[in-house]
Amino acid sequence: MGVMGRVTDRRQVLRIDLDQGGSPSRRMDTLAGEEPLEIRVGHRSDRRPLAVTMRTPGDDIDLAIGFLFTEGLIRDAADVITAQLCAGTDEPNTYNVVDVTLGPDVPAPSIDPARNFYTTSSCGICGKASIDAVRTTSRFDLAQDECAVTPSVLAGLPETLRAAQKTFDRTGGLHAAGLFSGGGELICIREDVGRHNAVDKLVGWAVREGRVPLRGHTLLVSGRASFELVQKAAMAGVPVLAAVSAPSTLAVDLAEQVGLTLVGFVRGPTMNVYAGAQRVAAGVAGSAHR
Amino acid sequence: MGVMGRVTDRRQVLRIDLDQGGSPSRRMDTLAGEEPLEIRVGHRSDRRPLAVTMRTPGDDIDLAIGFLFTEGLIRDAADVITAQLCAGTDEPNTYNVVDVTLGPDVPAPSIDPARNFYTTSSCGICGKASIDAVRTTSRFDLAQDECAVTPSVLAGLPETLRAAQKTFDRTGGLHAAGLFSGGGELICIREDVGRHNAVDKLVGWAVREGRVPLRGHTLLVSGRASFELVQKAAMAGVPVLAAVSAPSTLAVDLAEQVGLTLVGFVRGPTMNVYAGAQRVAAGVAGSAHR
Repeated sequence: MGVMGRVTDRRQVLRIDLDQGGSPSRRMDTLAGEEPLEIRVGHRSDRRPLAVTMRTPGDDIDLAIGFLFTEGLIRDAADVITAQLCAGTDEPNTYNVVDVTLGPDVPAPSIDPARNFYTTSSCGICGKASIDAVRTTSRFDLAQDECAVTPSVLAGLPETLRAAQKTFDRTGGLHAAGLFSGGGELICIREDVGRHNAVDKLVGWAVREGRVPLRGHTLLVSGRASFELVQKAAMAGVPVLAAVSAPSTLAVDLAEQVGLTLVGFVRGPTMNVYAGAQRVAAGVAGSAHR
Repeated sequence: MGVMGRVTDRRQVLRIDLDQGGSPSRRMDTLAGEEPLEIRVGHRSDRRPLAVTMRTPGDDIDLAIGFLFTEGLIRDAADVITAQLCAGTDEPNTYNVVDVTLGPDVPAPSIDPARNFYTTSSCGICGKASIDAVRTTSRFDLAQDECAVTPSVLAGLPETLRAAQKTFDRTGGLHAAGLFSGGGELICIREDVGRHNAVDKLVGWAVREGRVPLRGHTLLVSGRASFELVQKAAMAGVPVLAAVSAPSTLAVDLAEQVGLTLVGFVRGPTMNVYAGAQRVAAGVAGSAHR
């Protein structure tokens, strides 16, 4: 057996503080782990590398399952016969490959013949094509999820997420994705150097637990909300995506098209609702009656 | 002619401030643009899609040139005969394709036959293999660049970068990469929703200007320093990479292996030097003699 990849590791660092005269001091610093993960997928007799992502080791099976699910390549956990974390052939001392065997009825992912490489399912040649790709791939109609979330619940999520980020506390440098109930209870949190990986780890967990679509839930991500994160939320059937920082134009446009509530700049008592305001507005109207 | 992709665009937003009673107000908000960009590359008679990246429109030619350069696919601007921003065939109203024609002597990028898809040149099956791939691809020996940078210069870079971020000011949500002289003068800045794209845009500019290797310069990135950013800095021959936030383990390991100075958490008067401290330590020793 080899050495598993580490969530964190320590390195010597030269610490400089100009206010302390600038004379450097040596100390140990804890850093977030980063290692490549190759996802291999196919049928029992023929599994091939599909993607490589730089990720923080840990929850690797969930990462692979979540990636396949948000790409629309599997519909649920039953589509996967086995998913094994295994060592690469060249480097026996690492576990940076997840080998996924699909059920015989599940189509293997196809390489785009026009491109000769696998791109994410939503990589169109323009924003509109990318949005259309998500709309045709997504299995859940978010517009039918009539849940509501109050602004005061949303305002409390970042502090809850931050308090639960164990690895961030030690490294100061990890993204996180948190799944919350409508009442603001933290259900699951995942961390990673890549925000999209943190979301895939979380979605993979939910798929294995049979929890998708994640109706009535809110997904909170540290940092910004990109198109890719809205796409993953939509694929997982999460009706509300909240972010601590700004969304992009395409993130907002996709959210509107799929009926997802997108909230950005959730900071202290303030937030901006960019799409699907009816789920938040209900909460606002309710609080006005108090 | 079609409509160019926009660096920023405006969307209506519902603004909620719980301290103001929670009653929402409608207003317009400026967001960072995000659109896919497809990079096509090859010889005059046969150019094929190589990669698709979600980027903020603008400096797209530089982004493509920088990507090809940091991937080791071109050695300098002379390897490119033409690079054209053009409309996708399906969607005439967008300019989301950069079509690059390589010189006849420049090998076209090959699809990895074992994988059937193009991965970045440094995507190994483990961290060590990824580092080895960069070492064998990189053309510049950073260890021979004996430049020095003082902690006080480094401490001033984030404020300079931030002040120059025009799009961030309007959107609050863009990453930036800034190229600085050894004395801390800002030479070039690029912004993007993706940090790696901001660096590629900057490197592409430098390649077109005939400035690589970027000896004696410092590259500052907003946010964290990942393996990918160290790889791009090394490929561009930048001896010093500074980041406002944390590096990952693999970023530090790669920096050490290629002789790059990696500085993290550059905040106010403090910073951590994770690799190549001799370039910063020289400055510290110098300041001690004052």
